[in-house]
Amino acid sequence: MAERSYPELHRYLIIPTTIGSEEDETLTAAEGAWLWGASGKKYIDACAQVSCANIGHNHPKFTKWMEGFYRWAHAHRLITTVMGTDFFYCNNFDIGEYKVEKKKIELSPVALAERLAPRIFGAENTLFGFHVTGTQAVNIALRFFRTVTQKPYFISFEKAFHGRDGEAREVSDSNPVHWNEAPRSGSVFFLPYPETDADFGRAVEKLNSIPLKKCAAMIYEPVQGEGGGMRIGRYLRDLEALLKKEGILSISDEVQTGLGRCGTWWGYQQIGCDPDALVIGKSLGSGHPVSAVGFRRDRYDYASFPTGKVSGTFSMYPIGMAAANFTMQIYEEEQIVEKAAALSPLFDKLLRQAIIPFDEHDTVSPYYTIDGIGLYRSIKPYTFDGKPDLKKRNLLFQRLRELGVWTAKASFSFPAIRLTPPLVANKEELKFISYIVKQAIRSV
Amino acid sequence: MAERSYPELHRYLIIPTTIGSEEDETLTAAEGAWLWGASGKKYIDACAQVSCANIGHNHPKFTKWMEGFYRWAHAHRLITTVMGTDFFYCNNFDIGEYKVEKKKIELSPVALAERLAPRIFGAENTLFGFHVTGTQAVNIALRFFRTVTQKPYFISFEKAFHGRDGEAREVSDSNPVHWNEAPRSGSVFFLPYPETDADFGRAVEKLNSIPLKKCAAMIYEPVQGEGGGMRIGRYLRDLEALLKKEGILSISDEVQTGLGRCGTWWGYQQIGCDPDALVIGKSLGSGHPVSAVGFRRDRYDYASFPTGKVSGTFSMYPIGMAAANFTMQIYEEEQIVEKAAALSPLFDKLLRQAIIPFDEHDTVSPYYTIDGIGLYRSIKPYTFDGKPDLKKRNLLFQRLRELGVWTAKASFSFPAIRLTPPLVANKEELKFISYIVKQAIRSV
Repeated sequence: MAERSYPELHRYLIIPTTIGSEEDETLTAAEGAWLWGASGKKYIDACAQVSCANIGHNHPKFTKWMEGFYRWAHAHRLITTVMGTDFFYCNNFDIGEYKVEKKKIELSPVALAERLAPRIFGAENTLFGFHVTGTQAVNIALRFFRTVTQKPYFISFEKAFHGRDGEAREVSDSNPVHWNEAPRSGSVFFLPYPETDADFGRAVEKLNSIPLKKCAAMIYEPVQGEGGGMRIGRYLRDLEALLKKEGILSISDEVQTGLGRCGTWWGYQQIGCDPDALVIGKSLGSGHPVSAVGFRRDRYDYASFPTGKVSGTFSMYPIGMAAANFTMQIYEEEQIVEKAAALSPLFDKLLRQAIIPFDEHDTVSPYYTIDGIGLYRSIKPYTFDGKPDLKKRNLLFQRLRELGVWTAKASFSFPAIRLTPPLVANKEELKFISYIVKQAIRSV
Repeated sequence: MAERSYPELHRYLIIPTTIGSEEDETLTAAEGAWLWGASGKKYIDACAQVSCANIGHNHPKFTKWMEGFYRWAHAHRLITTVMGTDFFYCNNFDIGEYKVEKKKIELSPVALAERLAPRIFGAENTLFGFHVTGTQAVNIALRFFRTVTQKPYFISFEKAFHGRDGEAREVSDSNPVHWNEAPRSGSVFFLPYPETDADFGRAVEKLNSIPLKKCAAMIYEPVQGEGGGMRIGRYLRDLEALLKKEGILSISDEVQTGLGRCGTWWGYQQIGCDPDALVIGKSLGSGHPVSAVGFRRDRYDYASFPTGKVSGTFSMYPIGMAAANFTMQIYEEEQIVEKAAALSPLFDKLLRQAIIPFDEHDTVSPYYTIDGIGLYRSIKPYTFDGKPDLKKRNLLFQRLRELGVWTAKASFSFPAIRLTPPLVANKEELKFISYIVKQAIRSV
């Protein structure tokens, strides 16, 4: 097979997983908020590779620490070539202190829990489950609540995306996960996603047809990414309050919106929700698959939850735990969330300015909207009569690429474009993205 | 929380995932086939941490290469802090050659596919999907076949274990995955696991009540681990041949049995099966979650399979791909499978001798059986009247631990003990395990 090019071999040997597999540019390198293509062209990363690169690419501390981790692990004969805790209790992390530049960095699951807990429901008020992918953490959250409540049903939202396997797929309603081969269990009720007052009204009305007493939990995205192209669930808070009265627990899926993406630690904080659990994934391990679910302890007694039930071969695998602890250490040292919070108003202002057409006296754009919160944004093009404009979206996407902004088409359901740079992007880089957006809009 | 001990904090902060969380010994270090406990005690690893450590713990090449990988990746600004291929085509691996000790090691998904394909259905005859956990790879295999055949049902086996999420759980029938909170879809038919001629007869009989024309695929473990305590599916081959006539595809779940564990590359080879797909996980990434599914191309046209359908955030994540390629490189350099094949008859002989009681003229043991194939073995204790002896199993497990053999209780369904050392265990180490088994048996 030597005569075939690498992309040809890839297409021949591996099931096509890539939505953009027909793209002409291939990414070959990355640093901070920047990417390089095989063509030699440099791009600003305006999708943080879909929320996986919050601390930026090739973060110098992170890669150096990981390199040191393997050296240290080997010297201490750390148990890494192994599942963490499915069958045994491994406490690798007491045997030696990982130190770098005279600084001790804790790498255990306990350390990760202790770092995250004060950011979630409080140091003494958060119970954790760790797993590998976001989907699996969603599954743990849903199953956990199904078990403790002994109720079979869930409530989710139209166009939701929570993952491709198991209960996470059951509570999803966006295109990519529901191709015809997957039969539905019928155990999930989908409400209109409450972006507007009218949505909320329809959602409340629909509650009348749902057996609420049999619903274990509701699960929501504070900002609907995949399905909504960054629609904000402004009325989730009210819906959550209504359902809490019925004894229904709530889960905020923060796999994309969490870890500072929305300008707060968690997206739900932006809309005042009050979840009983939240799910974290993607950027948590900075390239290593690590996910987590945090449960709020003070409203529910989880003491009877049986051991081993949410286990898995790689839950709490030591390498992933190290990667997630390093990521959190960088969050702390570089004040990643605080920085994202500080730059969010600027990014918002710049993007809203970018879509205003030629006349400088205009204050709104008739043909584009900017959606989302913080650094979790999208741009949506509309036709002259106010309908979503797929053709213009695709043109704009192409033009952005040509002009050096690397991004993703945001949603199957709605023609949008993601504008979600790494959280380490600085003021100048956000200005650059906005500037190119403006140029691209003026040329499509 | 400073006053609490590490295990106390662990139990407080993290959902108890560990089956053995009440164990008195905590593992703290590992090397090759050996483990060390917090007590200072040394153990031989007789469960390869449930098939995740085939190349042994802290393999000197592996950890050194991983350390070098991060250094190299950083120097080349490799795209690691990122999902691989959900949205984009990243070809990190053309930008520089990873070299260690003047040796070039290929690290791409294509390289991994090219390494594995000749071991599976042939270099030109294997189509791959890569994912993170074994469960997810099982899900891909099942959904893939459901899609290409357009048939809704699956056939699986009583006591099967294939995973805890999604379709993988649907086709499972062993204890840990089917606690009451998970409703069944009814899309799976379970046959008796065909260990004996009688099982096979009952399985064939049961086929009469199954809508075979609507079954997409059957999935089997060549040796039933979790559910069967290493029962061998001797008649799977015949059953598979029968179902092939009905157009039903077959999947061999090799997550535990594969990669040399049974003394051949795949467990199915030991019983002469002829699968259309196989699933790989656990040891593939030597501590990094990496899984794969290989599809046989020459019997089915997969060309129309839609792109993006089996995608996932971390499928083909670069760090996992590097880890799996390093693992396969070590398999090749150290002839891991060939070594396991060569030592399998010795291990079999030693274990069978170990269970023979006091009288040296005995040739069989009335109170114990050794099950399994290759280095995938178990020991099962029986009562005087031939019934599975749970009490003796637990005593024996405890005694083995005391005498320095670290293993796991093999099965919820059947009281057995795993004897599945790392595949790098040498002759002396296998002798040591067998010797301790003998001593333990004589003292319970």
